[in-house]
Amino acid sequence: MNRLQVLQQYLTEFQIDAAFINSTENIFYLTNFYIDPHERLAGVLLFSKTEPLMIVPSMEVSQAKAAGWEHEIIGYEDHEDPWSLLQKAVNSRRISDAKTISFEKGTLSYERGESFQSLFSSPTIVSIEEKLNNMRVVKSEAEVNIIRRAALLADFGVEVGVKALKEGVTELEVVAEIEYELKKKGVRHMSFSTIVLFGEKSGEPHGNPGHRRLSKGDFVLFDLGVVLDGYCSDISRTVVFGEVNEKQKAIYEVVLKAQMASLSISKPGTRVGDLDITARNIIEENGYGDLFPHRIGHGLGINVHESPSMSQNNESILKEGMVYTIEPGIYDATIGGVRIEDDVLVTKEGHEILTKYPKNLQVIV
Amino acid sequence: MNRLQVLQQYLTEFQIDAAFINSTENIFYLTNFYIDPHERLAGVLLFSKTEPLMIVPSMEVSQAKAAGWEHEIIGYEDHEDPWSLLQKAVNSRRISDAKTISFEKGTLSYERGESFQSLFSSPTIVSIEEKLNNMRVVKSEAEVNIIRRAALLADFGVEVGVKALKEGVTELEVVAEIEYELKKKGVRHMSFSTIVLFGEKSGEPHGNPGHRRLSKGDFVLFDLGVVLDGYCSDISRTVVFGEVNEKQKAIYEVVLKAQMASLSISKPGTRVGDLDITARNIIEENGYGDLFPHRIGHGLGINVHESPSMSQNNESILKEGMVYTIEPGIYDATIGGVRIEDDVLVTKEGHEILTKYPKNLQVIV
Repeated sequence: MNRLQVLQQYLTEFQIDAAFINSTENIFYLTNFYIDPHERLAGVLLFSKTEPLMIVPSMEVSQAKAAGWEHEIIGYEDHEDPWSLLQKAVNSRRISDAKTISFEKGTLSYERGESFQSLFSSPTIVSIEEKLNNMRVVKSEAEVNIIRRAALLADFGVEVGVKALKEGVTELEVVAEIEYELKKKGVRHMSFSTIVLFGEKSGEPHGNPGHRRLSKGDFVLFDLGVVLDGYCSDISRTVVFGEVNEKQKAIYEVVLKAQMASLSISKPGTRVGDLDITARNIIEENGYGDLFPHRIGHGLGINVHESPSMSQNNESILKEGMVYTIEPGIYDATIGGVRIEDDVLVTKEGHEILTKYPKNLQVIV
Repeated sequence: MNRLQVLQQYLTEFQIDAAFINSTENIFYLTNFYIDPHERLAGVLLFSKTEPLMIVPSMEVSQAKAAGWEHEIIGYEDHEDPWSLLQKAVNSRRISDAKTISFEKGTLSYERGESFQSLFSSPTIVSIEEKLNNMRVVKSEAEVNIIRRAALLADFGVEVGVKALKEGVTELEVVAEIEYELKKKGVRHMSFSTIVLFGEKSGEPHGNPGHRRLSKGDFVLFDLGVVLDGYCSDISRTVVFGEVNEKQKAIYEVVLKAQMASLSISKPGTRVGDLDITARNIIEENGYGDLFPHRIGHGLGINVHESPSMSQNNESILKEGMVYTIEPGIYDATIGGVRIEDDVLVTKEGHEILTKYPKNLQVIV
């Protein structure tokens, strides 16, 4: 069974008459068609009892077919109302009296949710997201192979970034070098806006690269990833430029220790929340508890952030084939911050770390 | 009055008790704080009768204050439920009996819409988006000045791209050159994924750059823009590499003529839909009507696509201070496509074209 059939079977089993899949990521997961329609409507309609259909702007129709879509496809022009076209399609399938409908409640807009709802007489709404997240959380071998290649490109990005470090260079110049070399290798998209932060700026967990110039003694924090064939990687590394002091060494050691501890319990059967708690305990014991304000990591796949969300209260259990990040950090507004992040695959017996860039403290001279 | 006060006055006037502003763009527009919280919740709550508040992940609190936020701010950790914190804030303001509430129905997810709704006993929901779109559609002088600078950087991007053309270069290599040079000038984000398409690939209105290599006689289509201080630019230019044939010349001339005609009526008082119709008529008269499958353009500002959507049935009227794109195109799957796009500001008497890169047909040798 392909993914579309798995989902249709789920609809049948749970007596959901119709489902609308609207997010770029889930359309891609189900159909292999990657569409980013900006504010225009694109989506897949699935029905428990009849053939699925796709609706896209007319200029995307040929690409949807090229990606392998073999069912009905409705193309619409900018001056047309896609919802009336969908109403006709629903009517012609004689399912406007659907009792239960479903869509991605976490991503579909409220307005579109209402529009979809209005295609049917008075349906109950359930979310289809949990099912899709559960389908996506365990990766196939093919998916893992893509993420593995994406992770190696992320390693390469850090390597380029480290090579670009020299006194006086700006954060944005280093970002430019990294993305240039990755684009030359055929990368179309970074999985998020590349982060390179120097000195005290690395102490902001979500700081933005700018015109800060590199000086001796600065921490340099890299956080970047690429999208390859629809899948994301995500790596963080921190190095020191020129010379290192004892405070920096102490922070680095604690983050690395916390990261290794969390990695060491990455295996089937571990409670997800324990990955966070294990790392957090080490950071707290060392007196930096207040300086680690984010969760230990997140699932990784078509989205750079996907299920599972790896915070301490996540009760779900690691399974073979899950891919996620482990990325503890300590952020001191005066000294700067350290984050060390790997992409991790849960294997039958334990785990495999997909990002390979070295993690020992490097002083770049 | 600042923008927050203007919106609060609107709430009072229309008896809307509470509004939740959730999109990155509208938060930025109202507060000058740019936050991209990924799947985490961030937003501004406005009330008709009491002080506003902001909710963000705790690691963003300091940046929100640095951007100028002076009212209450709730920071939450990943393991906390932001909605219960909001419930407390709403209760403490004694407005949980609000009769009418409002949010961005077009961008807030259905799930979050339900969560916001559940903070109140049994409210009526109205959308706040139209008001915000109307506030944003006419740009201030300060906004225009930023977009003007962003447009010049887009020109520069095309210039870099044209210089990078040589036999055998790939589309992605040209993309890499463009973005590298722009990042070196301090650009952090492109306003969308840079498009460079060669030959027949330029005939796909939404084609993706890849490893196609440049050959003599190819059309080269550029479509790119930058984000500068929160505002977007967006330019398209098409050139021919090496040598040009009569069919290419004919298509180019029609697109340019259509674009100039649409520009010529860009002035206060023009019906927005007429911008599309004017260009479309010229393209149809020349026998290419089926090959122009998209609207003439879109508003431009904090979003690269914002109000007004410039399709033929848009009845709204151009006003001084509006900024939008004019971008007709003809796409022939065999010969390739031509699109010419400028960013346009409506002035008191007419318009100013913000993108300056030449539009005569260039054969690059």
